[in-house]
Amino acid sequence: MKNFPTLSEKNQSNLIHELTQYSLANGLIIYPPDFKEYQPNLAPVTLFPTPYPSKEFEKSILIATQFNSLYGSIVSEKKWLMEIIKDLSVFDSDFTGKLYSTHLEAEKQGIPQPVSLGLFRSDYMLDNISNEIKQVEFNTVSVSFGGLSTKVGQLHSFLNNYGLYTSSGAPYYKSDDLPVSDSANGLADGLHQAVTYYESKHTDAKTIVLFVIQPNERNAFDQRAVEYSLYQRYGIPSKRVTLPEATSKVKVDPTTKKLYFDGSEVSVVYYRSAYGPQEYDCQEAWDCRLVLETTLAIKCPSLVVQLSGAKKIQQLLTDSATVSRFSPDAANEDLLSTFVKIYPLDDSESGAYAKKLAFEQPHLFVLKPQREGGGNNVYKEDIPSFLKSIPEAEWAGFILMELINPSINKNLILRNGEIIDEGVISELGVFGTLLFNEETGEVLHNAAAGHLLRSKTASSNEGGVAAGFGCVDSLYIH
Amino acid sequence: MKNFPTLSEKNQSNLIHELTQYSLANGLIIYPPDFKEYQPNLAPVTLFPTPYPSKEFEKSILIATQFNSLYGSIVSEKKWLMEIIKDLSVFDSDFTGKLYSTHLEAEKQGIPQPVSLGLFRSDYMLDNISNEIKQVEFNTVSVSFGGLSTKVGQLHSFLNNYGLYTSSGAPYYKSDDLPVSDSANGLADGLHQAVTYYESKHTDAKTIVLFVIQPNERNAFDQRAVEYSLYQRYGIPSKRVTLPEATSKVKVDPTTKKLYFDGSEVSVVYYRSAYGPQEYDCQEAWDCRLVLETTLAIKCPSLVVQLSGAKKIQQLLTDSATVSRFSPDAANEDLLSTFVKIYPLDDSESGAYAKKLAFEQPHLFVLKPQREGGGNNVYKEDIPSFLKSIPEAEWAGFILMELINPSINKNLILRNGEIIDEGVISELGVFGTLLFNEETGEVLHNAAAGHLLRSKTASSNEGGVAAGFGCVDSLYIH
Repeated sequence: MKNFPTLSEKNQSNLIHELTQYSLANGLIIYPPDFKEYQPNLAPVTLFPTPYPSKEFEKSILIATQFNSLYGSIVSEKKWLMEIIKDLSVFDSDFTGKLYSTHLEAEKQGIPQPVSLGLFRSDYMLDNISNEIKQVEFNTVSVSFGGLSTKVGQLHSFLNNYGLYTSSGAPYYKSDDLPVSDSANGLADGLHQAVTYYESKHTDAKTIVLFVIQPNERNAFDQRAVEYSLYQRYGIPSKRVTLPEATSKVKVDPTTKKLYFDGSEVSVVYYRSAYGPQEYDCQEAWDCRLVLETTLAIKCPSLVVQLSGAKKIQQLLTDSATVSRFSPDAANEDLLSTFVKIYPLDDSESGAYAKKLAFEQPHLFVLKPQREGGGNNVYKEDIPSFLKSIPEAEWAGFILMELINPSINKNLILRNGEIIDEGVISELGVFGTLLFNEETGEVLHNAAAGHLLRSKTASSNEGGVAAGFGCVDSLYIH
Repeated sequence: MKNFPTLSEKNQSNLIHELTQYSLANGLIIYPPDFKEYQPNLAPVTLFPTPYPSKEFEKSILIATQFNSLYGSIVSEKKWLMEIIKDLSVFDSDFTGKLYSTHLEAEKQGIPQPVSLGLFRSDYMLDNISNEIKQVEFNTVSVSFGGLSTKVGQLHSFLNNYGLYTSSGAPYYKSDDLPVSDSANGLADGLHQAVTYYESKHTDAKTIVLFVIQPNERNAFDQRAVEYSLYQRYGIPSKRVTLPEATSKVKVDPTTKKLYFDGSEVSVVYYRSAYGPQEYDCQEAWDCRLVLETTLAIKCPSLVVQLSGAKKIQQLLTDSATVSRFSPDAANEDLLSTFVKIYPLDDSESGAYAKKLAFEQPHLFVLKPQREGGGNNVYKEDIPSFLKSIPEAEWAGFILMELINPSINKNLILRNGEIIDEGVISELGVFGTLLFNEETGEVLHNAAAGHLLRSKTASSNEGGVAAGFGCVDSLYIH
């Protein structure tokens, strides 16, 4: 591996200036808190790409379509999945439970569209002992940063080619070693597949994609990159509506169940929201989800696809027999090697073993609530005292996950004009798109769709880019 | 002509939202006063394109290369030009005089590069009586908004195609009626021609373009659009330096007179500064201009080319015999029809006539100082009292220019999130690029390079976009 670029103070200051203006000129931006709509900020970024072993990067891309298939198969075996979700609902009645009951209600009313679109992202950390990627989680709803990832890759490539990483003005990296993620286009391609399928089956009209978003979205430009790619490359326009407003703004034909927005037929409902309990703070939000779920539009994702992303499913898949059962192709060494041990803390045999581990070797684990978005993770030595502080009956609401020991890399984070130099921990996300029939399991489209590297300071345990803890980064493969 | 789009309050508010995010995502931005570098603003823009008669627009493009030739010829007849500039220096010793004496000093030291690049912009207003374009001025230095003009054209086309100008979602305009200016690329093409010429004649090295800019440039993203086009399309990198700093940062080989910046050979010095007296507030700025002028790099523009943009030259060209003398091709009806009457206020016969006009029919005129950037225009009825307030000997420091009566069009300006609905007056700029030998007059490249429409509220007499009075706009040709 090459050494890290070292720049004089003057050259680093020039790099920051050039980076900032290139990024702003090319939409690598985000809204700050309490923003004025016409005044964005430079998105938090690293100054340099972060080193990543090529073998692990290639593996992550290779297994993307297999993960797509695996989750498609799980969704198609709805009975098995729903049994698990039903059990989970006990621990998370407010959110998982409501998603589940909304699905049941939708089924009762009738779900006219069996075809479903998944825009997925599998997140990995590089374990510094095995030097292998290990899966942190598999996201089945509202995956973000596909748009800005393309832009940060273009940024780092530009800075390198423009000679800003060296004092001589020569490139520091070989171009081939800085792969630019095609995720803005890749996610748009997935939407395009779904639109094309819908139009071929259901209509002669030109349809639109309906982005269901959060109010005051700070990460709007990440979403816009996908929207504009979809329009510029395929001529497919999108419209945007917030979750609670959608019910009052859409129209559903009671006979055909076709969905209309502002006079246009909607072929795909694309959620860039609706993934956390705080978004369902009013009955309108749940009503909206139900209304949309029972239309003919293809949902990205459906409630079932969203529910398949539960941590409990991730835990069950660490058993290779379960993977084999759902998708024999996926049960290969590459994919299985990305799993760390995950244990339930319930009354099972495995649960009993895990409870012992939690008290005897807590430093190897992180405790994660089954409940979505409703609590924080508990790390290492804090686990025993935390468990003692709650009734044992509630322990089954958590999973115990083997800690990944991420490498700490040298890099500099630029946020709000300030440089943070504390080393970075990075998380690789790999996007995948899957268009499939939930009832028959038939796969209509399955593709890898680019990647994402998010980095955060080595000291911070959690947090996304928009929340202000991390930043978008790109890969230097070696 | 079609009616102007009328939108409901809801649709207009949606249009503003979509316009804002598309613009920010695509770099249609500007820094506000007292900016933080990582936080730009949406550039002031119109919501809609402004109607423009196609015949006049086509004419403006057609005559662009003829204006290039004309100014190239004037520069090549240096003796004639310098006599005029010498006379002008009396009225503007601080600026025109200093530019002139700096040129003389450069000539004394030796100007090794006879080839010169002009990136010009001819500005017109549409006279609402004749319905013809009339030239406001011909700019020979640091012409701006070529970058943002392309972006505002793309913006208005996008909004139209995306169906945001109608309640039905259909386009309001025919695509062909919304010409997108190719000026970002056009200006880059001019620079590319100069770089290629320099490299073919003088070096085997890969050279750079040196942008000489103002400190704390608010309009940086307009310049960046040209820079990135030049790099992305031709692989030619640029570097940036401020005017007073350049002397200490460049190196000149005393033998070859080659110019180097940060270790790179500079083929073209591109001024996006150096056009107003307030920029030369220290001797370093003048020194810098002299140092650069006497290098082998191609200047865009040279001091002589810059001086050819004096209002006095514009006045002299209103005589068709003068045009014929310099460029017989340019002395055609189309080009000559763009001139309004311009009179000197000196001791000539024409001057005596003009003095009479100034007092008898002041409402038809604007009084403009010969002095560059050093005073304000005086309009209509204010002219007599103004002239009386200064000694008659100083009157020759002004020209009397026939007022153009611009059409007022309906349009809405969006600035800092607020809509201004007062009608707009628009100025059409047409870019041209000319690479030529100042000594022989040989033309190496001559092209039209896109256009620009700037609009301002009907009530404001003056002011550019960055100054906060106007905004970037695009054409709807009809």
